Amino acid sequence: MTKEDQITSWFASQSNADADAFPIGIGDDMAQVRAGADGTVLITTDMLLDGAHFDLQQCSLEQAAQKAMAASLSDCAAMATVPVCAVAAVGLPEGFGEGELKELHAGLIAARRLYGCELIGGDITKWRHAQGRLAIAVTMLSRPSGYHPPVRRNGAKVGDIICVTGSLGGSIAGKHLDFTPRVDEALALTKAAKINAMMDITDGLSTDLNRICTQSKVGAVVWADCIPVSDAAVDQRGHGPPYGLDAALHDGEDFELLFTLSPQEFEKLPQLTTAPITKIGCVTNSGRMELKNPNGQIKLLTPRGFDHL
Amino acid sequence: MTKEDQITSWFASQSNADADAFPIGIGDDMAQVRAGADGTVLITTDMLLDGAHFDLQQCSLEQAAQKAMAASLSDCAAMATVPVCAVAAVGLPEGFGEGELKELHAGLIAARRLYGCELIGGDITKWRHAQGRLAIAVTMLSRPSGYHPPVRRNGAKVGDIICVTGSLGGSIAGKHLDFTPRVDEALALTKAAKINAMMDITDGLSTDLNRICTQSKVGAVVWADCIPVSDAAVDQRGHGPPYGLDAALHDGEDFELLFTLSPQEFEKLPQLTTAPITKIGCVTNSGRMELKNPNGQIKLLTPRGFDHL
Repeated sequence: MTKEDQITSWFASQSNADADAFPIGIGDDMAQVRAGADGTVLITTDMLLDGAHFDLQQCSLEQAAQKAMAASLSDCAAMATVPVCAVAAVGLPEGFGEGELKELHAGLIAARRLYGCELIGGDITKWRHAQGRLAIAVTMLSRPSGYHPPVRRNGAKVGDIICVTGSLGGSIAGKHLDFTPRVDEALALTKAAKINAMMDITDGLSTDLNRICTQSKVGAVVWADCIPVSDAAVDQRGHGPPYGLDAALHDGEDFELLFTLSPQEFEKLPQLTTAPITKIGCVTNSGRMELKNPNGQIKLLTPRGFDHL
Repeated sequence: MTKEDQITSWFASQSNADADAFPIGIGDDMAQVRAGADGTVLITTDMLLDGAHFDLQQCSLEQAAQKAMAASLSDCAAMATVPVCAVAAVGLPEGFGEGELKELHAGLIAARRLYGCELIGGDITKWRHAQGRLAIAVTMLSRPSGYHPPVRRNGAKVGDIICVTGSLGGSIAGKHLDFTPRVDEALALTKAAKINAMMDITDGLSTDLNRICTQSKVGAVVWADCIPVSDAAVDQRGHGPPYGLDAALHDGEDFELLFTLSPQEFEKLPQLTTAPITKIGCVTNSGRMELKNPNGQIKLLTPRGFDHL
């Protein structure tokens, strides 16, 4: 038996995936997954790279793997769907072996306890050059909640209120490695109200709101003094607002929810104990994004968040 | 609009995924996929690394991407399931941009024409260090064929005949970059006969047959003179058998089917026009793998294929 088979067997032994939900689990050519009651699954994939999304000189393998899962969980939240399972493919640096894989595994399976999301398969590969660094690709399946259709980016309507959860900016100070994907919050929101458009903020509010506007063919006005600036954003820039505001508008990896809904539906939103909901603006028919300052001045808001290219 | 959004829009424009099968396609936080008639999907993931699974100094980006898809298609074949769709996450070297992404895309979508397998999502990331090389992670979903359950590795029975498709060994000479995943062949085989165990040969016959034996709790005897040794395996070693035999037993990346079935079911197998089926041995209750030489001598067959660790 190869070392790969040994560790795969160990992974399988650590799984207690329900045989009805997962007729075929870890250790075969493919795993089998039962879809949601409506006969569909949703799928998302994320690749995280050492030196770009995490830095193994500053975090553990377990943290890196947990972040990889959390990034996909955040996509499940972005659609208000229920995480079902994940597969993880890793590209290992030279010298990595069983010990490192078990640390990665510990990070990957944290999602089972927290969100009922099973690890049901994967792939182990290794770089052949000395400079090869860890790459982790997680692909996650979810199912519709049953009480609200998956929330897309393209459904924002003129007159909608724009909301975010939590606070924004300064994620690099620590939150980017240890954030709570808003899975439970998204499900609670969509249980209470009809959400027209939603996504998670990964590349910065300005860039991600622009995605909702573009796909929904609408404009938006954002009220500068309403944006919940995180303490980390203020601290990081060291000058308080407007520097904090700048970070809140454009910093990446907030992993908070950005969503729009009608004023009537807004009234139905529950209080979330885990993250405040803040009204930050409204959807307009202007065809562009605008920022309204406290003095009433309106200026163009351009997407200046993170561009992976 | 970010460069990432521009290329994502272009990818979406290239897709003509059926809206009923894929209610949500490229460009949202997740894609939505309708499961098979039995309400399940199967999932597999593969990561391919520059310098390990392909070498960009010797192949095109399109070839590399096509191999990444083909590796996952081969997993669909290994279970005799019907490919449905794939998502691809890439870790790009510095300097890669739109042009390189379009070349990769061309390789990824070849599976649509050949196997009806849609590309429905992905993730684009970039290394931040100059030595970062291309990583491609493909995750594929398939559905059961409807006429034969997904074929697992653990169903081999004592008395079964062991078969392979095509010829084995020497894949490094070229086939590893340009192979035909045995999707159609697997579906044709399982339409005609009941297959007890199957997988694709990725890490070498000896290692992969050992996986079937271990998971099925059986032994096997392989007839040395029946193994279909590829011309490339003979040429590569330059000495003809037994060097060719050695390559056929242990070389990786054959991407042929390895399967077992009862002698009665064997009689029902169709002739495949694309790949000959060869009987190479039988399943025993010995609890070990054995190799029977033409002179009748039997020796232990140890797994000496590729170990990713």
